[in-house]
Amino acid sequence: MNVEIVDRKILSDDLQPLTSELRELASREDVNLIITTGGTGLGPRDNTPEATSQVLEREAPGISEAIRAESLRHTPMGMISRGVAGICSGTLIINLPGSPKAVRESFQVISPILNHSIDLISGNTTHSGSQ
Amino acid sequence: MNVEIVDRKILSDDLQPLTSELRELASREDVNLIITTGGTGLGPRDNTPEATSQVLEREAPGISEAIRAESLRHTPMGMISRGVAGICSGTLIINLPGSPKAVRESFQVISPILNHSIDLISGNTTHSGSQ
Amino acid sequence: MNVEIVDRKILSDDLQPLTSELRELASREDVNLIITTGGTGLGPRDNTPEATSQVLEREAPGISEAIRAESLRHTPMGMISRGVAGICSGTLIINLPGSPKAVRESFQVISPILNHSIDLISGNTTHSGSQ
Repeated sequence: MNVEIVDRKILSDDLQPLTSELRELASREDVNLIITTGGTGLGPRDNTPEATSQVLEREAPGISEAIRAESLRHTPMGMISRGVAGICSGTLIINLPGSPKAVRESFQVISPILNHSIDLISGNTTHSGSQ
Repeated sequence: MNVEIVDRKILSDDLQPLTSELRELASREDVNLIITTGGTGLGPRDNTPEATSQVLEREAPGISEAIRAESLRHTPMGMISRGVAGICSGTLIINLPGSPKAVRESFQVISPILNHSIDLISGNTTHSGSQ
Repeated sequence: MNVEIVDRKILSDDLQPLTSELRELASREDVNLIITTGGTGLGPRDNTPEATSQVLEREAPGISEAIRAESLRHTPMGMISRGVAGICSGTLIINLPGSPKAVRESFQVISPILNHSIDLISGNTTHSGSQ
Protein backbone atom coordinates (compact mmCIF):
# COMPACT_ATOMS: atom_id res chain seq x y z
CA MET A 1 0.00 0.00 0.00
CA ASN A 2 1.12 3.47 -0.86
CA VAL A 3 -0.06 5.42 2.16
CA GLU A 4 0.92 8.55 4.00
CA ILE A 5 -0.06 8.91 7.61
CA VAL A 6 -1.04 12.56 7.82
CA ASP A 7 -2.22 12.54 11.42
CA ARG A 8 -2.33 10.34 14.45
CA LYS A 9 -4.38 11.56 17.36
CA ILE A 10 -5.68 10.53 20.73
CA LEU A 11 -9.35 11.44 20.46
CA SER A 12 -11.82 12.16 23.21
CA ASP A 13 -13.72 9.40 24.97
CA ASP A 14 -16.77 11.65 25.17
CA LEU A 15 -19.46 11.35 22.54
CA GLN A 16 -19.86 14.94 21.39
CA PRO A 17 -16.18 15.93 21.13
CA LEU A 18 -15.38 12.57 19.53
CA THR A 19 -18.11 13.07 16.96
CA SER A 20 -16.83 16.55 16.10
CA GLU A 21 -13.25 15.37 15.85
CA LEU A 22 -14.19 12.53 13.50
CA ARG A 23 -16.27 14.83 11.31
CA GLU A 24 -13.43 17.35 11.12
CA LEU A 25 -10.84 14.72 10.25
CA ALA A 26 -13.13 13.18 7.61
CA SER A 27 -13.70 16.55 5.94
CA ARG A 28 -9.98 17.22 5.46
CA GLU A 29 -8.87 17.16 1.82
CA ASP A 30 -5.75 15.17 2.69
CA VAL A 31 -7.59 12.41 4.60
CA ASN A 32 -9.35 9.52 2.83
CA LEU A 33 -9.08 6.86 5.52
CA ILE A 34 -9.60 7.05 9.29
CA ILE A 35 -8.87 4.01 11.39
CA THR A 36 -9.88 4.28 15.02
CA THR A 37 -8.72 1.89 17.70
CA GLY A 38 -10.54 1.25 20.96
CA GLY A 39 -13.71 2.57 22.48
CA THR A 40 -15.76 -0.17 20.86
CA GLY A 41 -16.54 -2.27 23.93
CA LEU A 42 -19.49 -2.38 26.28
CA GLY A 43 -18.22 0.08 28.88
CA PRO A 44 -19.91 3.39 29.66
CA ARG A 45 -17.05 5.31 28.01
CA ASP A 46 -16.99 3.20 24.85
CA ASN A 47 -18.53 5.79 22.55
CA THR A 48 -16.62 5.18 19.32
CA PRO A 49 -19.37 3.30 17.44
CA GLU A 50 -22.00 5.86 18.40
CA ALA A 51 -19.79 8.80 17.38
CA THR A 52 -18.86 7.11 14.13
CA SER A 53 -22.47 6.19 13.30
CA GLN A 54 -23.45 9.81 13.77
CA VAL A 55 -20.99 11.01 11.12
CA LEU A 56 -21.44 8.19 8.60
CA GLU A 57 -23.40 9.02 5.46
CA ARG A 58 -23.20 5.41 4.28
CA GLU A 59 -22.57 2.30 6.31
CA ALA A 60 -20.35 -0.58 5.23
CA PRO A 61 -21.43 -3.24 7.72
CA GLY A 62 -19.54 -6.04 5.98
CA ILE A 63 -16.21 -4.55 7.03
CA SER A 64 -17.10 -4.74 10.72
CA GLU A 65 -18.68 -8.16 10.27
CA ALA A 66 -15.44 -9.45 8.72
CA ILE A 67 -13.34 -7.98 11.54
CA ARG A 68 -15.53 -9.62 14.17
CA ALA A 69 -15.71 -12.94 12.35
CA GLU A 70 -11.91 -13.11 12.36
CA SER A 71 -11.76 -11.98 15.98
CA LEU A 72 -14.25 -14.71 16.95
CA ARG A 73 -11.82 -17.32 15.61
CA HIS A 74 -9.44 -16.23 18.39
CA THR A 75 -11.79 -15.46 21.28
CA PRO A 76 -15.53 -15.42 21.95
CA MET A 77 -14.95 -11.89 23.32
CA GLY A 78 -14.68 -10.79 19.69
CA MET A 79 -18.46 -10.72 19.54
CA ILE A 80 -18.73 -7.85 22.01
CA SER A 81 -16.75 -5.44 19.86
CA ARG A 82 -19.31 -2.98 18.52
CA GLY A 83 -17.25 -1.30 15.79
CA VAL A 84 -18.87 0.16 12.70
CA ALA A 85 -17.51 1.25 9.32
CA GLY A 86 -18.62 3.44 6.48
CA ILE A 87 -18.18 6.64 4.55
CA CYS A 88 -18.23 10.28 5.65
CA SER A 89 -17.25 13.13 3.30
CA GLY A 90 -15.53 10.75 0.91
CA THR A 91 -13.47 9.27 3.75
CA LEU A 92 -13.63 5.62 4.78
CA ILE A 93 -13.87 5.29 8.56
CA ILE A 94 -13.26 1.92 10.21
CA ASN A 95 -13.46 1.21 13.94
CA LEU A 96 -10.98 -1.36 15.22
CA PRO A 97 -10.96 -2.84 18.73
CA GLY A 98 -8.48 -1.51 21.27
CA SER A 99 -6.04 -4.20 22.31
CA PRO A 100 -2.78 -4.29 20.31
CA LYS A 101 -3.35 -7.97 19.48
CA ALA A 102 -6.88 -7.31 18.23
CA VAL A 103 -5.69 -4.30 16.23
CA ARG A 104 -3.09 -6.44 14.45
CA GLU A 105 -5.60 -9.20 13.71
CA SER A 106 -8.22 -6.72 12.51
CA PHE A 107 -5.85 -4.76 10.35
CA GLN A 108 -4.86 -7.92 8.53
CA VAL A 109 -8.52 -8.45 7.73
CA ILE A 110 -9.07 -5.00 6.25
CA SER A 111 -5.72 -4.35 4.58
CA PRO A 112 -6.60 -6.16 1.30
CA ILE A 113 -9.60 -3.92 0.68
CA LEU A 114 -8.27 -0.50 1.64
CA ASN A 115 -6.72 0.68 -1.63
CA HIS A 116 -9.58 -0.51 -3.81
CA SER A 117 -12.17 0.86 -1.38
CA ILE A 118 -10.61 4.30 -1.38
CA ASP A 119 -10.49 4.27 -5.19
CA LEU A 120 -14.18 3.37 -5.34
CA ILE A 121 -15.20 6.04 -2.85
CA SER A 122 -13.36 8.67 -4.89
CA GLY A 123 -15.43 7.72 -7.91
CA ASN A 124 -13.02 5.34 -9.64
CA THR A 125 -15.82 3.05 -10.74
CA THR A 126 -13.84 0.26 -12.34
CA HIS A 127 -15.57 -2.83 -11.05
CA SER A 128 -13.54 -5.78 -9.89
CA GLY A 129 -14.96 -8.84 -8.22
CA SER A 130 -17.95 -8.81 -5.95
CA GLN A 131 -18.79 -5.47 -4.51
CA MET B 1 -38.96 -23.39 -6.25
CA ASN B 2 -42.25 -22.56 -7.81
CA VAL B 3 -41.72 -18.98 -8.92
CA GLU B 4 -43.02 -16.65 -11.55
CA ILE B 5 -40.91 -13.71 -12.60
CA VAL B 6 -43.47 -10.96 -13.03
CA ASP B 7 -41.06 -8.15 -13.77
CA ARG B 8 -37.42 -7.52 -14.48
CA LYS B 9 -36.31 -3.92 -14.55
CA ILE B 10 -33.26 -1.75 -14.79
CA LEU B 11 -33.80 0.66 -11.92
CA SER B 12 -32.39 4.12 -11.44
CA ASP B 13 -28.99 4.67 -9.84
CA ASP B 14 -30.32 7.79 -8.14
CA LEU B 15 -31.53 7.57 -4.57
CA GLN B 16 -34.97 9.13 -4.81
CA PRO B 17 -36.22 7.44 -8.00
CA LEU B 18 -34.75 4.13 -6.86
CA THR B 19 -36.54 4.42 -3.54
CA SER B 20 -39.85 5.16 -5.25
CA GLU B 21 -39.43 2.32 -7.71
CA LEU B 22 -38.67 -0.17 -4.93
CA ARG B 23 -41.65 0.99 -2.88
CA GLU B 24 -43.94 0.70 -5.89
CA LEU B 25 -42.71 -2.78 -6.80
CA ALA B 26 -43.03 -3.94 -3.18
CA SER B 27 -46.60 -2.71 -2.95
CA ARG B 28 -47.77 -4.70 -5.98
CA GLU B 29 -50.12 -7.56 -5.13
CA ASP B 30 -48.33 -9.91 -7.49
CA VAL B 31 -44.84 -9.30 -6.04
CA ASN B 32 -43.62 -11.01 -2.85
CA LEU B 33 -39.89 -11.06 -3.57
CA ILE B 34 -37.59 -8.40 -4.99
CA ILE B 35 -33.99 -9.28 -5.69
CA THR B 36 -31.78 -6.37 -6.66
CA THR B 37 -28.34 -6.77 -8.16
CA GLY B 38 -25.62 -4.15 -8.03
CA GLY B 39 -25.37 -0.70 -6.57
CA THR B 40 -24.14 -2.08 -3.25
CA GLY B 41 -20.51 -0.99 -3.45
CA LEU B 42 -18.66 2.04 -2.12
CA GLY B 43 -18.98 4.26 -5.17
CA PRO B 44 -20.86 7.57 -5.19
CA ARG B 45 -23.64 6.03 -7.33
CA ASP B 46 -24.05 2.92 -5.20
CA ASN B 47 -27.37 3.87 -3.62
CA THR B 48 -29.13 0.52 -3.46
CA PRO B 49 -28.66 -0.13 0.28
CA GLU B 50 -29.77 3.38 1.19
CA ALA B 51 -32.86 3.20 -1.04
CA THR B 52 -33.72 -0.25 0.28
CA SER B 53 -33.25 0.76 3.91
CA GLN B 54 -35.61 3.66 3.39
CA VAL B 55 -38.44 1.37 2.27
CA LEU B 56 -37.86 -1.50 4.71
CA GLU B 57 -40.33 -1.81 7.57
CA ARG B 58 -38.35 -4.69 9.08
CA GLU B 59 -34.73 -5.58 8.55
CA ALA B 60 -33.43 -9.10 8.13
CA PRO B 61 -29.71 -8.51 8.64
CA GLY B 62 -28.84 -12.20 8.79
CA ILE B 63 -29.60 -12.61 5.10
CA SER B 64 -27.02 -9.99 4.11
CA GLU B 65 -24.56 -11.32 6.67
CA ALA B 66 -24.85 -14.81 5.15
CA ILE B 67 -24.35 -13.47 1.62
CA ARG B 68 -21.22 -11.58 2.66
CA ALA B 69 -19.84 -14.46 4.72
CA GLU B 70 -20.04 -16.69 1.64
CA SER B 71 -18.60 -13.97 -0.57
CA LEU B 72 -15.67 -13.52 1.85
CA ARG B 73 -14.74 -17.16 1.31
CA HIS B 74 -14.01 -16.24 -2.32
CA THR B 75 -12.55 -12.75 -2.02
CA PRO B 76 -11.82 -10.21 0.70
CA MET B 77 -13.68 -7.70 -1.51
CA GLY B 78 -16.88 -9.41 -0.31
CA MET B 79 -16.70 -7.34 2.85
CA ILE B 80 -17.29 -4.07 0.99
CA SER B 81 -20.67 -5.11 -0.36
CA ARG B 82 -23.17 -3.08 1.63
CA GLY B 83 -26.38 -4.92 0.75
CA VAL B 84 -29.34 -5.04 3.11
CA ALA B 85 -32.44 -7.22 3.27
CA GLY B 86 -35.84 -7.06 4.88
CA ILE B 87 -39.56 -6.65 4.46
CA CYS B 88 -41.63 -3.89 2.84
CA SER B 89 -45.39 -4.23 2.27
CA GLY B 90 -45.26 -7.99 2.75
CA THR B 91 -42.50 -8.29 0.15
CA LEU B 92 -39.03 -9.65 0.91
CA ILE B 93 -36.33 -7.42 -0.60
CA ILE B 94 -32.76 -8.69 -0.86
CA ASN B 95 -29.82 -6.74 -2.27
CA LEU B 96 -27.24 -8.83 -4.11
CA PRO B 97 -23.88 -7.58 -5.38
CA GLY B 98 -23.48 -6.69 -9.04
CA SER B 99 -20.98 -8.98 -10.70
CA PRO B 100 -22.49 -12.08 -12.39
CA LYS B 101 -20.15 -14.32 -10.38
CA ALA B 102 -21.15 -12.72 -7.10
CA VAL B 103 -24.83 -12.89 -8.04
CA ARG B 104 -24.56 -16.63 -8.66
CA GLU B 105 -22.71 -17.23 -5.39
CA SER B 106 -25.12 -15.07 -3.44
CA PHE B 107 -28.22 -16.58 -4.95
CA GLN B 108 -27.05 -20.03 -3.92
CA VAL B 109 -26.84 -18.74 -0.35
CA ILE B 110 -30.37 -17.37 -0.27
CA SER B 111 -32.22 -19.88 -2.42
CA PRO B 112 -32.86 -22.38 0.44
CA ILE B 113 -34.70 -19.79 2.52
CA LEU B 114 -36.82 -18.03 -0.11
CA ASN B 115 -39.94 -20.19 -0.16
CA HIS B 116 -40.17 -20.56 3.60
CA SER B 117 -39.46 -16.86 4.14
CA ILE B 118 -42.21 -15.79 1.80
CA ASP B 119 -44.63 -18.16 3.53
CA LEU B 120 -43.72 -16.69 6.92
CA ILE B 121 -44.09 -13.10 5.74
CA SER B 122 -47.55 -13.86 4.42
CA GLY B 123 -48.57 -15.07 7.86
CA ASN B 124 -48.06 -18.80 7.43
CA THR B 125 -46.74 -19.19 10.95
CA THR B 126 -45.83 -22.85 10.94
CA HIS B 127 -42.45 -22.83 12.68
CA SER B 128 -39.65 -24.97 11.35
CA GLY B 129 -36.12 -24.90 12.64
CA SER B 130 -34.40 -21.86 14.03
CA GLN B 131 -35.99 -18.61 13.03
CA MET C 1 -21.74 -18.43 35.95
CA ASN C 2 -23.08 -17.06 39.17
CA VAL C 3 -26.56 -15.99 38.14
CA GLU C 4 -29.91 -15.52 39.76
CA ILE C 5 -33.00 -15.68 37.62
CA VAL C 6 -35.15 -12.93 39.09
CA ASP C 7 -37.98 -13.14 36.60
CA ARG C 8 -39.24 -15.24 33.75
CA LYS C 9 -42.12 -13.87 31.77
CA ILE C 10 -44.21 -14.48 28.71
CA LEU C 11 -44.15 -11.10 27.03
CA SER C 12 -46.60 -9.64 24.57
CA ASP C 13 -46.31 -10.28 20.85
CA ASP C 14 -47.49 -6.75 20.15
CA LEU C 15 -44.93 -4.07 19.51
CA GLN C 16 -45.98 -1.37 21.95
CA PRO C 17 -46.63 -3.55 25.04
CA LEU C 18 -43.50 -5.57 24.31
CA THR C 19 -41.41 -2.40 24.08
CA SER C 20 -42.80 -1.14 27.40
CA GLU C 21 -42.23 -4.47 29.11
CA LEU C 22 -38.63 -4.64 27.93
CA ARG C 23 -37.94 -1.08 29.03
CA GLU C 24 -39.45 -1.75 32.44
CA LEU C 25 -37.48 -4.96 32.95
CA ALA C 26 -34.26 -3.27 31.82
CA SER C 27 -34.73 -0.41 34.28
CA ARG C 28 -35.06 -2.70 37.31
CA GLU C 29 -32.12 -2.48 39.71
CA ASP C 30 -31.99 -6.24 40.09
CA VAL C 31 -31.84 -7.00 36.36
CA ASN C 32 -28.61 -6.76 34.34
CA LEU C 33 -29.35 -9.31 31.64
CA ILE C 34 -32.49 -9.97 29.61
CA ILE C 35 -32.57 -12.90 27.25
CA THR C 36 -35.61 -13.09 25.01
CA THR C 37 -36.56 -16.16 23.02
CA GLY C 38 -38.71 -16.14 19.93
CA GLY C 39 -40.44 -13.44 17.95
CA THR C 40 -37.36 -12.92 15.78
CA GLY C 41 -38.63 -14.47 12.56
CA LEU C 42 -40.25 -13.00 9.47
CA GLY C 43 -43.89 -13.37 10.52
CA PRO C 44 -46.25 -10.44 11.05
CA ARG C 45 -46.21 -11.02 14.82
CA ASP C 46 -42.44 -11.30 15.10
CA ASN C 47 -41.88 -7.95 16.77
CA THR C 48 -39.05 -8.75 19.18
CA PRO C 49 -36.20 -7.14 17.19
CA GLU C 50 -38.21 -3.97 16.59
CA ALA C 51 -39.22 -3.68 20.25
CA THR C 52 -35.68 -4.35 21.39
CA SER C 53 -34.15 -1.86 18.94
CA GLN C 54 -36.51 0.80 20.24
CA VAL C 55 -35.22 0.42 23.80
CA LEU C 56 -31.52 -0.06 23.05
CA GLU C 57 -29.24 2.87 23.80
CA ARG C 58 -26.27 1.04 22.33
CA GLU C 59 -26.24 -1.85 19.90
CA ALA C 60 -23.92 -4.83 20.11
CA PRO C 61 -24.37 -6.29 16.61
CA GLY C 62 -21.53 -8.78 16.98
CA ILE C 63 -23.51 -10.80 19.50
CA SER C 64 -26.36 -11.36 17.05
CA GLU C 65 -23.92 -11.96 14.20
CA ALA C 66 -22.22 -14.69 16.24
CA ILE C 67 -25.53 -16.32 17.12
CA ARG C 68 -26.57 -16.40 13.47
CA ALA C 69 -23.19 -17.59 12.23
CA GLU C 70 -23.45 -20.58 14.57
CA SER C 71 -27.05 -21.17 13.60
CA LEU C 72 -26.10 -21.12 9.90
CA ARG C 73 -23.75 -24.03 10.54
CA HIS C 74 -26.85 -26.10 11.39
CA THR C 75 -29.45 -24.76 8.95
CA PRO C 76 -29.71 -22.09 6.27
CA MET C 77 -32.86 -20.95 8.08
CA GLY C 78 -30.52 -19.40 10.65
CA MET C 79 -30.11 -16.44 8.35
CA ILE C 80 -33.74 -15.37 8.73
CA SER C 81 -33.50 -14.86 12.46
CA ARG C 82 -33.57 -11.10 12.94
CA GLY C 83 -32.45 -10.87 16.57
CA VAL C 84 -30.60 -7.85 17.90
CA ALA C 85 -28.55 -7.23 21.05
CA GLY C 86 -27.34 -4.26 23.02
CA ILE C 87 -27.60 -2.18 26.16
CA CYS C 88 -30.55 -0.42 27.77
CA SER C 89 -30.33 1.16 31.23
CA GLY C 90 -27.18 -0.77 32.06
CA THR C 91 -28.86 -4.05 31.13
CA LEU C 92 -27.63 -6.32 28.35
CA ILE C 93 -30.53 -7.49 26.16
CA ILE C 94 -30.04 -10.38 23.76
CA ASN C 95 -32.69 -11.78 21.40
CA LEU C 96 -32.49 -15.52 20.83
CA PRO C 97 -34.54 -17.47 18.27
CA GLY C 98 -37.59 -19.37 19.42
CA SER C 99 -37.13 -23.08 18.88
CA PRO C 100 -35.73 -25.00 21.88
CA LYS C 101 -32.93 -26.39 19.70
CA ALA C 102 -31.96 -22.95 18.43
CA VAL C 103 -32.12 -21.54 21.97
CA ARG C 104 -29.69 -24.18 23.19
CA GLU C 105 -27.29 -23.60 20.30
CA SER C 106 -27.49 -19.83 20.68
CA PHE C 107 -27.03 -19.86 24.42
CA GLN C 108 -23.84 -21.85 24.03
CA VAL C 109 -22.57 -19.10 21.75
CA ILE C 110 -23.25 -16.28 24.17
CA SER C 111 -22.54 -17.95 27.51
CA PRO C 112 -18.74 -17.30 27.43
CA ILE C 113 -19.23 -13.55 27.15
CA LEU C 114 -22.08 -12.92 29.59
CA ASN C 115 -20.19 -12.43 32.86
CA HIS C 116 -17.47 -10.25 31.37
CA SER C 117 -20.01 -8.23 29.37
CA ILE C 118 -22.09 -7.47 32.44
CA ASP C 119 -18.96 -6.41 34.32
CA LEU C 120 -17.99 -4.06 31.50
CA ILE C 121 -21.45 -2.52 31.25
CA SER C 122 -21.42 -1.80 34.96
CA GLY C 123 -18.21 0.16 34.52
CA ASN C 124 -15.66 -2.49 35.46
CA THR C 125 -13.23 -1.32 32.81
CA THR C 126 -10.51 -3.91 33.19
CA HIS C 127 -9.69 -4.80 29.62
CA SER C 128 -9.17 -8.38 28.60
CA GLY C 129 -8.73 -9.55 25.07
CA SER C 130 -10.31 -7.91 22.09
CA GLN C 131 -13.29 -5.80 22.90
